[in-house]
Amino acid sequence: MSVVVVQPTRTARARLQPFDARQVGLVDGFWADRIRINREHTIPHGLDQIRNAGTLGNLRLAAAGAGDYRAAADSVGATLPFLDSDVYKWLEAVGWELGRQPDPALAAAADGVIDVVAAAQRPDGYLNSYVQLGGGVPYRDLSWGHELYCVAHLIQAAVAWHRALADDRLLAVAVRATDHLPPGIMDGHPGIEMALVELTRVTGDRRYLALAARMIEQRGRRTLPGADRFGATYWQDHETVRDAASVAGHAVRQLYLDCGAVDVAVEAGDDQLLTAVRRRWDDLMRTRTYLTGGMGSRHRDEAFGDPYELPPDRAYAETCAAIASVMLAWRLLLATGDVTYADTIERTMFNGVLPGLALDGRRFFYTNPLQRRTHRTPGGAGERRPWYPCACCPPNLMRMLSSWQQYLATHDESGLQLHQYASAEVDAELRAGPVRVQIRTDYPWDGRILVRLLRTPAEPWTLSMRVPRWCHSATITGPDGTETLGTGTGTVKRHRRWRPGDVVDLSLDLPPRVTEPDPRVDAVRGCVAVERGPLVYCIEAADAPERTEIEELSWDPRRDLATVPRPDLEESLVGITVPVVRHRPGESAADGLTTGAIPYFAWANRTLGGMRVWIPRSTP
Amino acid sequence: MSVVVVQPTRTARARLQPFDARQVGLVDGFWADRIRINREHTIPHGLDQIRNAGTLGNLRLAAAGAGDYRAAADSVGATLPFLDSDVYKWLEAVGWELGRQPDPALAAAADGVIDVVAAAQRPDGYLNSYVQLGGGVPYRDLSWGHELYCVAHLIQAAVAWHRALADDRLLAVAVRATDHLPPGIMDGHPGIEMALVELTRVTGDRRYLALAARMIEQRGRRTLPGADRFGATYWQDHETVRDAASVAGHAVRQLYLDCGAVDVAVEAGDDQLLTAVRRRWDDLMRTRTYLTGGMGSRHRDEAFGDPYELPPDRAYAETCAAIASVMLAWRLLLATGDVTYADTIERTMFNGVLPGLALDGRRFFYTNPLQRRTHRTPGGAGERRPWYPCACCPPNLMRMLSSWQQYLATHDESGLQLHQYASAEVDAELRAGPVRVQIRTDYPWDGRILVRLLRTPAEPWTLSMRVPRWCHSATITGPDGTETLGTGTGTVKRHRRWRPGDVVDLSLDLPPRVTEPDPRVDAVRGCVAVERGPLVYCIEAADAPERTEIEELSWDPRRDLATVPRPDLEESLVGITVPVVRHRPGESAADGLTTGAIPYFAWANRTLGGMRVWIPRSTP
Repeated sequence: MSVVVVQPTRTARARLQPFDARQVGLVDGFWADRIRINREHTIPHGLDQIRNAGTLGNLRLAAAGAGDYRAAADSVGATLPFLDSDVYKWLEAVGWELGRQPDPALAAAADGVIDVVAAAQRPDGYLNSYVQLGGGVPYRDLSWGHELYCVAHLIQAAVAWHRALADDRLLAVAVRATDHLPPGIMDGHPGIEMALVELTRVTGDRRYLALAARMIEQRGRRTLPGADRFGATYWQDHETVRDAASVAGHAVRQLYLDCGAVDVAVEAGDDQLLTAVRRRWDDLMRTRTYLTGGMGSRHRDEAFGDPYELPPDRAYAETCAAIASVMLAWRLLLATGDVTYADTIERTMFNGVLPGLALDGRRFFYTNPLQRRTHRTPGGAGERRPWYPCACCPPNLMRMLSSWQQYLATHDESGLQLHQYASAEVDAELRAGPVRVQIRTDYPWDGRILVRLLRTPAEPWTLSMRVPRWCHSATITGPDGTETLGTGTGTVKRHRRWRPGDVVDLSLDLPPRVTEPDPRVDAVRGCVAVERGPLVYCIEAADAPERTEIEELSWDPRRDLATVPRPDLEESLVGITVPVVRHRPGESAADGLTTGAIPYFAWANRTLGGMRVWIPRSTP
Repeated sequence: MSVVVVQPTRTARARLQPFDARQVGLVDGFWADRIRINREHTIPHGLDQIRNAGTLGNLRLAAAGAGDYRAAADSVGATLPFLDSDVYKWLEAVGWELGRQPDPALAAAADGVIDVVAAAQRPDGYLNSYVQLGGGVPYRDLSWGHELYCVAHLIQAAVAWHRALADDRLLAVAVRATDHLPPGIMDGHPGIEMALVELTRVTGDRRYLALAARMIEQRGRRTLPGADRFGATYWQDHETVRDAASVAGHAVRQLYLDCGAVDVAVEAGDDQLLTAVRRRWDDLMRTRTYLTGGMGSRHRDEAFGDPYELPPDRAYAETCAAIASVMLAWRLLLATGDVTYADTIERTMFNGVLPGLALDGRRFFYTNPLQRRTHRTPGGAGERRPWYPCACCPPNLMRMLSSWQQYLATHDESGLQLHQYASAEVDAELRAGPVRVQIRTDYPWDGRILVRLLRTPAEPWTLSMRVPRWCHSATITGPDGTETLGTGTGTVKRHRRWRPGDVVDLSLDLPPRVTEPDPRVDAVRGCVAVERGPLVYCIEAADAPERTEIEELSWDPRRDLATVPRPDLEESLVGITVPVVRHRPGESAADGLTTGAIPYFAWANRTLGGMRVWIPRSTP
């Protein structure tokens, strides 16, 4: 058994194989720091929150057989029925963490939570505290009840504990809960499909895969009642998964559904289904994705908008949608080997997922706008919060960070593929023989990546390294000499007889750059963004010239961007100095000013004020 | 008794007096046509719809004492409790119409509806079909139940029938329903406040005014439960009506509330309260109003956005909000005499209210976006519909059009003020003596307005005519000769001893013009709008060059706009030919093209395709 987030079976139609997490050891650097904060701060904070919010208490009451389900009303006044899933996501994160490194205190806390979950399960296998405390009739409201969605997260937690710790307490609960599901049902919120495929992968029982496949086929036939709320499109019941040409409706639902479709497709060898998802993905990337990798632009129904409807100020861009997009991109990368999916994972992890978490690891964003005005309407929120009444995002961040290292590399028959860059050690069992590589880099602050072979067989094999799409100039130096790499390289591959001690030096140039938007995105016409390497930057009130509001500044194209160390934010953080002009009614334009840009993931960690990713271009 | 929409009492602190509708006879032209369509098509269509939708049936069931309340679920799944108000708004429209001119068939139909309303009222005076059919406990959910909102529209209908027809059947019902209200209550949806003031004006009973004043004072103290849905701001319970510096929350609620505040202020001589509303209004005009006069930019909670958050594509701009804005502007105009309120009424009536109604008078828009993309996401709506599950807007349009003529002119001690332009005859009883003026114009297609005095006393008096804010060049010719008027004239006044047969010729130049947006409106940066006279124009797919999408076109600033007759749309309609450049990926820009712009109110009456009010500026 491998410690793997998504583990296609041997017979699955997948081009690349994931690594067992134990084979990828992060050493230090950017992501190692995030993962440490997640482990030391975010996950313990999450436990406090699911305790204080009554989320864990709901399961405890269900175990006792009586009590009032505790939940806030959501923004439309309905009691949130899906809070059990927060507990399961937290358990999944803990599973991956304990698999990486023991922690007796955390393990003891998790044991307590697992006991509560197991105790809450009814003798017949059914488990959902909202339903159990509210009358006890299961599957009465499949459209809005999220019962299968909760089972899905229970399964994912169980899979994590099984794979990472060979601990099957949760798996027993999950199998019984799954076996309680009546045939022919479907959830208003997808998620169960990918979980069922993983359950087959873990148990070998192909009934779960078949059930997932049936759900995928059933969707799009307008059978879910209750669509009068937002229309059948909201939960992707308007067109079949095979036919729908574009994403539509609630973003997280669509992305989770497509994750399940890929999982079913690779296990069943169903290329038509895979092609349908890839077509939707390509369209999504082209027409409905923010520069940050965020997606789902509409607040009203948390939905994708029309093509190119990407307002920065009213970007919904739910943290969960960014996470779901990484999950889907990873599945597509494994299935196809197409490195552009890894490009998207990089962009989305840095700029779509990570902004959802404060630097201290204890406060969260649910929505991730690309603009915040200095002056706002009364009643608006916009601050990071320690938790949310609908707390789907925080524990989703926890499980994503706890499994980040799994996205770093893959292997196949030919060799080893490095997709993401961090200081790490990777042990691979290639067909040629065992390989151990050491990776050293200060990425994303620095573009130099050193790969040293610590161990290699004599047989030749291929080392593949992604050259990110954002990179327009790079060099690679290895035993064969130096080569210059230009735009569109995609992947640089070196096939040879490697020797221990061989070093490959991939140097990616990452000057700060100005990015023009797609002209079809109406909402940011006349603006530019500032980027460096994989990072999207923003300008924020705290860095603006004195007595100047963000809205008064525009980018001055006559002067250059420059990098600047920003240890005030984080030790290695690289900021960018942006030349700006200040326009104020009744004053002549103030030339020669600069303002500081910081990585977008780091915004809203200081005094809350105006913020912009897209900066108007000054027109003299 | 006068036929008047808003009738301040003699002691009220109002600068201008409204006319009795019977004193303002529309002859023909633009608004006469709209009012005829409303009378002949929209109002009969409305009766069919409140019958077919079960709205009238609900009251009939309440009269019978049993049955199931019939209503769609709203977008958030709750049964709409306020449908009675659709019946009352329809009755109000019919009241004004029958007051203008009898129609036995319409009167008979209305009699039947009034009988149903009267029969539905409980012996104790309570009247609300949703509550009566749903268990019968009144005022249990003041936050969301809309019970006082419904009473408000009942009162407004009763006032219309009382004033226009001296028919007090509805007034008896309304008084008993109002007398049933317990003291100290407040509705989640304002509207009752202004209705109560009008009820005092009609009955002379100042208890209603006092009740309205109490509700105004009570608001803003966070006493309404249920604010967890959207926050207390949603229904303006976050800050007192006297203190709140800016509009916030649900747009129609805010505007109806401020209408009531003005009504209370003028009757109570409460200048501080009036000043508070004016301050909010000024801020609203400056920061949160679309070019069309539409307001309330957010879909999620039908709310005002942040300052300058005015996306054209996702403009909510509910038709009811535009109507409410006209209602508020009219009250402020009467209270203050400030002609800029009449400017806003003009802009909003033409471009904010009227687009909500199809040219045939039988289909409606609920939201009024300023942009519609050629390619849209599945499940989107965007077409005019014959009715809506939440049908607040259609009958609101009916009552607004049926009372339009009342906004045309006012009088005061000094004389007569013409605010809006249409061919009409106005009879005024001025202090100087009786006056009769004839107005002839093809406004808004032509800017010439001829005012002929048919009757006048020998005593001098003042004729005031608004020179619209959009007009930068005009001449006025009268018995004293000709004067040229420039930008910012506001009002042109002629004080003299008039003689019968005197003619005043006000000629407003209305060349097509290009309008730059406020640079603080991020969403339309780099765009311009095309306007002529009081009309905002748009470009629509049906007028685009062949095989060209709206999104491919940008305005060419090197060539001029030109007017062009568009009898294909309406007999006198003036279109504008806009020079454009076509940009297509992979093609060189196509120069020398033009596309047709039509008044925004006329959009979406042909093949549904792309539409833009704000057109990107071509940058060579």
